[in-house]
Amino acid sequence: MDRTTIKGPVYQRLAGVLETMIQRQSLRPGDRMPSVRQFSRQQRVSVPTALQAYATLETRGLIAARPKSGFFVQARQADFVREPDNTSAPQKVTDLADFDPLESLLADHSNARLVPFGAALPSGKLLPAEKLARIMGAIARKLGPESIQCDIAPGSERVRREIARRSLEWGCSLAPDDFIVTIGGTEALSLALRATCRPGATVVVESPTYYNLLNMLRELRLNALPVRMDGANGMDLDALDRALRRTRVAACVVIANFNNPTGSLMPDENKRRLMEILARRNVPLIEDDIYGDLQHEGPRPRCVKAFDRDSRVLLCGSFSKTLAPGYRVGYIAAGRYHRQVLGLKKTSSLAGASLPAFAIAEFLRNGGYDRYLRTLRQHYRRQVARMREAIVESFPENIGLSRPKGGFVLWCELPKRVDSIKLFWQARSAGISIAPGQLFSTQRTHQNFIRLNCGHPWDAATERSIGILGHLVKKMSA
Amino acid sequence: MDRTTIKGPVYQRLAGVLETMIQRQSLRPGDRMPSVRQFSRQQRVSVPTALQAYATLETRGLIAARPKSGFFVQARQADFVREPDNTSAPQKVTDLADFDPLESLLADHSNARLVPFGAALPSGKLLPAEKLARIMGAIARKLGPESIQCDIAPGSERVRREIARRSLEWGCSLAPDDFIVTIGGTEALSLALRATCRPGATVVVESPTYYNLLNMLRELRLNALPVRMDGANGMDLDALDRALRRTRVAACVVIANFNNPTGSLMPDENKRRLMEILARRNVPLIEDDIYGDLQHEGPRPRCVKAFDRDSRVLLCGSFSKTLAPGYRVGYIAAGRYHRQVLGLKKTSSLAGASLPAFAIAEFLRNGGYDRYLRTLRQHYRRQVARMREAIVESFPENIGLSRPKGGFVLWCELPKRVDSIKLFWQARSAGISIAPGQLFSTQRTHQNFIRLNCGHPWDAATERSIGILGHLVKKMSA
Repeated sequence: MDRTTIKGPVYQRLAGVLETMIQRQSLRPGDRMPSVRQFSRQQRVSVPTALQAYATLETRGLIAARPKSGFFVQARQADFVREPDNTSAPQKVTDLADFDPLESLLADHSNARLVPFGAALPSGKLLPAEKLARIMGAIARKLGPESIQCDIAPGSERVRREIARRSLEWGCSLAPDDFIVTIGGTEALSLALRATCRPGATVVVESPTYYNLLNMLRELRLNALPVRMDGANGMDLDALDRALRRTRVAACVVIANFNNPTGSLMPDENKRRLMEILARRNVPLIEDDIYGDLQHEGPRPRCVKAFDRDSRVLLCGSFSKTLAPGYRVGYIAAGRYHRQVLGLKKTSSLAGASLPAFAIAEFLRNGGYDRYLRTLRQHYRRQVARMREAIVESFPENIGLSRPKGGFVLWCELPKRVDSIKLFWQARSAGISIAPGQLFSTQRTHQNFIRLNCGHPWDAATERSIGILGHLVKKMSA
Repeated sequence: MDRTTIKGPVYQRLAGVLETMIQRQSLRPGDRMPSVRQFSRQQRVSVPTALQAYATLETRGLIAARPKSGFFVQARQADFVREPDNTSAPQKVTDLADFDPLESLLADHSNARLVPFGAALPSGKLLPAEKLARIMGAIARKLGPESIQCDIAPGSERVRREIARRSLEWGCSLAPDDFIVTIGGTEALSLALRATCRPGATVVVESPTYYNLLNMLRELRLNALPVRMDGANGMDLDALDRALRRTRVAACVVIANFNNPTGSLMPDENKRRLMEILARRNVPLIEDDIYGDLQHEGPRPRCVKAFDRDSRVLLCGSFSKTLAPGYRVGYIAAGRYHRQVLGLKKTSSLAGASLPAFAIAEFLRNGGYDRYLRTLRQHYRRQVARMREAIVESFPENIGLSRPKGGFVLWCELPKRVDSIKLFWQARSAGISIAPGQLFSTQRTHQNFIRLNCGHPWDAATERSIGILGHLVKKMSA
């Protein structure tokens, strides 16, 4: 990654520092900013540079100059928008056999001409593409003829060791042998479901949840039991407890750390209680931790697996949201289901591409992954904040908007009259891709919701596109 | 690929030319060889170089000098060995639930300290590792930040176009849109089975067949109906016809071009008849064509898919035996099952690693794949011939030995008293890996068979190891 393209000139970096302080509420709406002269002294930069940083924030509407008083932090509209209401979704077992995959809506993933608010894919510009490719080349040269050999499941110990080492960050202490390397998070989830469920079984999922999980259930001929989300805290555990009393389920799937699409983070005490509830009913937990490294502030959240006392958690993760979606390197630590998952893996894909996995392992070991992650998180956090602000300015007043604690997607509740699939087609005609809410729900409810990807650096096209979306939403809700 | 390391000095290349003529019976046992002087003139090399080529063949026992008469082609023992007898295997539907995966026997795949007669993996030295890595590096540089993006199923048109272009070689004329890129041949087969069969269904397989196919059936909870092989011609179609009259099956899997492990090639007229039989019973065919590019002589054999009139063939292939096992680039052309396979692919692994797939596509387009394949086929053919000769010299007299028409594995019937799993462990203690026959059969018959990988260039260690194996077999059969 070329750091200069991301960090930009000095004044931009300084503007970023101030923006962070405002977003973290170290500087709150109405607060007086340090004087330009004072700030230039603190940061050891020239007064013109400091002034340029302030001008940048002013342009963005984060601060405003008052005559003869200096700069003040502006109240931002996004701070006052309510959160989306997810409670309306029915909580009943759903046979997904006739579930429309809405295939056409996903065909745009790789269409580079559309403004990419649809798929939850980060911009290549934020990721260390060049560095990873260089590492891969060096490994290929070092291995010589061996570089084309197959790295049969569970995958080389070198790779599993680096992943295991990171498990300390998750509140776990897993060993290389606990892991199986997978084809991204998708294969990890698919293997976990196949290892725990037989066709016809019922699986608890969050409502709303990741749409490809629902497609997966359909393809595996599994039923879904959606359990609603409790505001910002993830799955409503009382609702889960009630559901499990009524219904026999084969597994439960959660994205506890920065749910897709809501961005919610399950608190540690809920994670502990979740495990108690599942242990009582002897239900395995499939934890999708693909966004876990992307908190917007504070320490890296613990995995639910950290509260797992009897190896019933199948922890799934990948480097697709942090390093390289196209390298397809994921993992599963399947606990007591390890042997079954390994058997399925060997007969489903046998191995992943070895060089990409070796390159990711080397980046984890010597590439400054932690330092890199700190920068990446800041980008995602800022892009999400910027998108929230732009949405609140452009969309109708009565919307709900998620306040993600991590990751890079926004979940947006639009006025009831908006049909987000219609909105999808209108936006597409305008060159913008979005993800309609129906994709994320077993019953195709959430008709008036959309998910927006904030994985790309903010630019004029993003700004304009939010304006167009707001216009379309206003027209539809009028 | 560094061609000099493969072709070696001039005299070795000349020895290769002569060896080919002997193996193709242009020069037959007892024939007088051209004089050294004559040969040096024909080949435009010096007399000492020609002599060195002859000396090389003499060392290998291919020719012998008779005083004052010149060199003569030696009769080779391997020409007289019979083929293995595969008819003893019972042909009945087998529930594989309790099927022992013999997992431990496969754990040695990546153990570089063992002489690699076990897994059917080619030597890295024969494959274009450096060239592919260079291509991959160039593509990564050209793509820049886009190089880490995800190439979601069915895979980029660029890759599918190059594969589709090759289908002319197979007697087909498929379009890019007929293909889905997969994680090697393994995922292609797995998706094909999942698209055509529900748990509990019965699948026709060859007996013997590729062991991971049997593991796959077990993991998918499918039953196997083994149909015996007809000598060198592949599946016995009369036996198939009888079996289908008695049993309802969901799919039929064949490796028509160079079956693993027997190396047999199904003639075109049988391929046509196979399709007639399956069409009559409305059974889909899953064709594993992973060895199809590796004929030992003559034109590239046609796929059964070339005889498919109603899109009932799911053709599976990969570049794991020809270019790079560890790049994991395979494909499926699933005919009328295309949509189902695509749905399963998107929810099983979503995408393969993009850079390796792009590199393989570029090699197919501009890398001289056909020229490269010609060299590779010669290597495999010679290695197989050399291994056959060494086996016949070292093993007991009453063995059966396959005459593969392509690929790089040998199937060897040992005396009845030999238990090949015991032999496996004894060989392993001696630093040699082999594949016991039981792995290849649904009923764990073929106890006295082994499969030997000839994917590595012949060297002294290979020679010695065949000697040791022969010694062990003789001891066990005594």
